[in-house]
Amino acid sequence: MQQLNHKIVRLAVMMTIASLGCGSYDAYAASEAKKPQVKANQALSMAELIKQSKAQDWRALDPENTLVMELEKGQVVIELAPHFAPQSIANIKALVHENYFDGLAMIRSHDNYVAQWGDADEKRAIKNARDKLPAEFSVHADKADVFTRLPDADGYAPQVGHVNGFAVGRDPKTQQTWLTHCYGAVGVARGNEIDSGNGTSLYAIIGHAPRHLDRNVTVVGRVMQGIALLSSLPRGTGAMGFYEKAEERGAIKSVRLASDMPEAERPRLEVVRTESLLFKDIVAAQRNRGGEWYKHAANYIELCNVPIPVRAREP
Amino acid sequence: MQQLNHKIVRLAVMMTIASLGCGSYDAYAASEAKKPQVKANQALSMAELIKQSKAQDWRALDPENTLVMELEKGQVVIELAPHFAPQSIANIKALVHENYFDGLAMIRSHDNYVAQWGDADEKRAIKNARDKLPAEFSVHADKADVFTRLPDADGYAPQVGHVNGFAVGRDPKTQQTWLTHCYGAVGVARGNEIDSGNGTSLYAIIGHAPRHLDRNVTVVGRVMQGIALLSSLPRGTGAMGFYEKAEERGAIKSVRLASDMPEAERPRLEVVRTESLLFKDIVAAQRNRGGEWYKHAANYIELCNVPIPVRAREP
Repeated sequence: MQQLNHKIVRLAVMMTIASLGCGSYDAYAASEAKKPQVKANQALSMAELIKQSKAQDWRALDPENTLVMELEKGQVVIELAPHFAPQSIANIKALVHENYFDGLAMIRSHDNYVAQWGDADEKRAIKNARDKLPAEFSVHADKADVFTRLPDADGYAPQVGHVNGFAVGRDPKTQQTWLTHCYGAVGVARGNEIDSGNGTSLYAIIGHAPRHLDRNVTVVGRVMQGIALLSSLPRGTGAMGFYEKAEERGAIKSVRLASDMPEAERPRLEVVRTESLLFKDIVAAQRNRGGEWYKHAANYIELCNVPIPVRAREP
Repeated sequence: MQQLNHKIVRLAVMMTIASLGCGSYDAYAASEAKKPQVKANQALSMAELIKQSKAQDWRALDPENTLVMELEKGQVVIELAPHFAPQSIANIKALVHENYFDGLAMIRSHDNYVAQWGDADEKRAIKNARDKLPAEFSVHADKADVFTRLPDADGYAPQVGHVNGFAVGRDPKTQQTWLTHCYGAVGVARGNEIDSGNGTSLYAIIGHAPRHLDRNVTVVGRVMQGIALLSSLPRGTGAMGFYEKAEERGAIKSVRLASDMPEAERPRLEVVRTESLLFKDIVAAQRNRGGEWYKHAANYIELCNVPIPVRAREP
């Protein structure tokens, strides 16, 4: 049994980080029609590609569009995607500027679904932010940034890919483009009325991507750091994972826009440019992971399994 | 703001349980080639279908293939799928019979990936179980049970569907069939060698389905109850989510086979028969969720978003 932990660790290493070499592939040739023919000829793993990357392969998070939520156990950093939801994001910023979220709480932890925060007591008044705004489920491609298409087929959208660090769906017929509900996506809770979400309650995806929510809710960004603080919350025991008692709800100390924080206190993060060659290589490396551990090549990568690496910036 | 909690609750209700009616659909007709043409003409939600179901739509878990893991905070119930991994499952049962897991611990919690358990100290000896056994990544369809194909296309497998309550992939050319890494799937940790997993360390999927693991690890079953006890564990701070200190590891009080427990103490659960008409209706209801909340019909359901309902049996 001496070997077990080594086995476990090696398993973990290989399951997580693809490494050199390509192993013995046994790819099947089925469903050619829907599957891109991508050759698994890359020699470097994602970790190695990142190690070799250049400064221009990364962009710093935009402080004007970065939310910093302080919880009791740490910091959650969310990057907003204003091209996709300009009005909702303007309203979230207005709420943040009036310290709307400070002292509120995590109100829901629904297993394999969402963590949600807001005002459980329904008492907090909005000052200058808007109470009602239109849904922003998708935008015309003209309004979005550079679209880097993922060649792999998707069941929920005619096309999928990435825009400026966010996973998106796209309809080439209508040119509509939308943010998708991959792990870590942040959206605006709403009621039955399409315009009933105003940003006072937000949620993050903490389970298998519920892509059926795409184009049904306004997605505003994604968690770039600290998602584990949300995903490992004790699950709520009320209906749909809502917490039933006040003491179960983890407090939100504050939510700030990074640009409003002193520069030294801002999170210093950068994200891989999804329009870069580095990103293309990362996708290829993850589509067919090499190394000694993998015995069967997937020859496919599903949108929400594509990593969009984030790291600390050099000081 | 009086409305907010109502909004939140309504959001939650609608996001979770599809309800009567079909709303205003705006389905796009793209990618016909890869997408089954399923009409969203069912009127009942999943919850209503379950309410109206008959006893014969459900089967009780087989006590001979049900593991009961007692953690400090509660019980995790795992159903094993012996058709798919007979040798691994026989070995896990042998380990359970020699009380191998009692007093061991959760050793890893890797965000958006796996929770893993076993012997962190590598000290526990195996008595009668085997130390080494062959990989069981897939089986010939003859060995599996009735395959109910999901009409929706999949990127990781030529065909997908369900066998006796488990989500599977299938290759019609080779007739090989395999258990997939959907949320809650339980597998046998292994090292680089294909035959290095013996069941002494197991993992459960607690994040977005890492389907690239399919046919790379022996999957033995799935968590039928208590997955939240595994998914909400504090994340390990070591490499790959391993816990670094003994006190971080939640203890396993015991792992028992249900058939070895007094009948009154066994979990009394039943699962929807995936070969039933009820299941077909549930899949249809979830593919295009009705009700007043949904504004856009997905017209697609991805394998790991298909619910396989489990409930307590009537006493």
